[in-house]
Amino acid sequence: MLTLYSTQSSGNSYKVRLMLARLARAFRLVEVDIFAGENRTPEFLAMNPEGRVPLLAVGGRMLAESNAILFYLADGTPFLPEDPFERAETLRWMFFEQNSHEPGIATARFWLRQVRGGRDLRTHDVDRWMEEGYAALRVMERHLEGRRFFVGDRPTIADIALYAHTHVAEEGDFSLAALPHVRAWLARVAAEPGHVDMDWRPAAAAA
Amino acid sequence: MLTLYSTQSSGNSYKVRLMLARLARAFRLVEVDIFAGENRTPEFLAMNPEGRVPLLAVGGRMLAESNAILFYLADGTPFLPEDPFERAETLRWMFFEQNSHEPGIATARFWLRQVRGGRDLRTHDVDRWMEEGYAALRVMERHLEGRRFFVGDRPTIADIALYAHTHVAEEGDFSLAALPHVRAWLARVAAEPGHVDMDWRPAAAAA
Repeated sequence: MLTLYSTQSSGNSYKVRLMLARLARAFRLVEVDIFAGENRTPEFLAMNPEGRVPLLAVGGRMLAESNAILFYLADGTPFLPEDPFERAETLRWMFFEQNSHEPGIATARFWLRQVRGGRDLRTHDVDRWMEEGYAALRVMERHLEGRRFFVGDRPTIADIALYAHTHVAEEGDFSLAALPHVRAWLARVAAEPGHVDMDWRPAAAAA
Repeated sequence: MLTLYSTQSSGNSYKVRLMLARLARAFRLVEVDIFAGENRTPEFLAMNPEGRVPLLAVGGRMLAESNAILFYLADGTPFLPEDPFERAETLRWMFFEQNSHEPGIATARFWLRQVRGGRDLRTHDVDRWMEEGYAALRVMERHLEGRRFFVGDRPTIADIALYAHTHVAEEGDFSLAALPHVRAWLARVAAEPGHVDMDWRPAAAAA
């Protein structure tokens, strides 16, 4: 049985819950309240010295980084192409997500929506999130013109990774109004069989 | 024949040159002078709309993102473990590199060393690069205690990815003096057979 340490409102944690749901894989969900510091306890830091969620326990081994977890879960499934070049293209969009997309879009949502005044928001930080976030959204918009999904003609973990933060980008004050291809793609991902929203939790296992 | 569009002083481009050298693979190197705007020409943007290096041409197809290129080149070689969990752990460190390491460490070097006054450096940006960069270096230091390489007992693309920016971190005003495990690991990577430094270029091919 897999155990997922996850924060329900975290986009990076949602990626993994969504992947597990799409694969119909059973798992134990452990909620980590990062706003109450549950990711900084000695017990949690012993599992992940970085103190971050999501964290996947596979037997006695721990795997960090949401996109590495997606890759591990998707390996051998249709969510990760078998063709070597398409496989690399899938990772290309996942590295884009972590380097160019998440730092603006997820960070804006985190501070503007979730923490809200928990520290002094600095104008120059907000400006940077907006600039970088919209640049990433424009890259997505251009790529999705004429495409149904990011790689090939079916959903991959690149779509799962990019969906998680993009579908709640408006909570970080981003407008998707001028991005019709992104909005159509979001609807397409959400219409896939087995899709679950961010609030979803697995039914409690018997044991 | 592979063609690599690369900027010689770019750490992300160096990753790919180093990987190709370690694999003893022939390739054509095309220098892109980003400081002269050669990555913003219509011709380059037609190949990569993001205008970034490195970019690998494989036949008529283009692959962006340095770490996705490393994965593509290393697939089927000892630089990418075959065990699914170790493969995911390798990616775990590569996503760490793009999300937590490169944004501070490489960005500081770029603006402090390479651009130098090309725009007004803002104190709050420099402070952020230092804070994030040292946090990433401390994660590496802790992980490397008692380990020779990042995953398993031999070098992988996680080491290649992290070496590229770390070995020139001091050019971005980071001190590695208090990080003995990181320094020992840098020396270990540089002592591997087939290692090349950042200045290396392949001998010109006959055709």
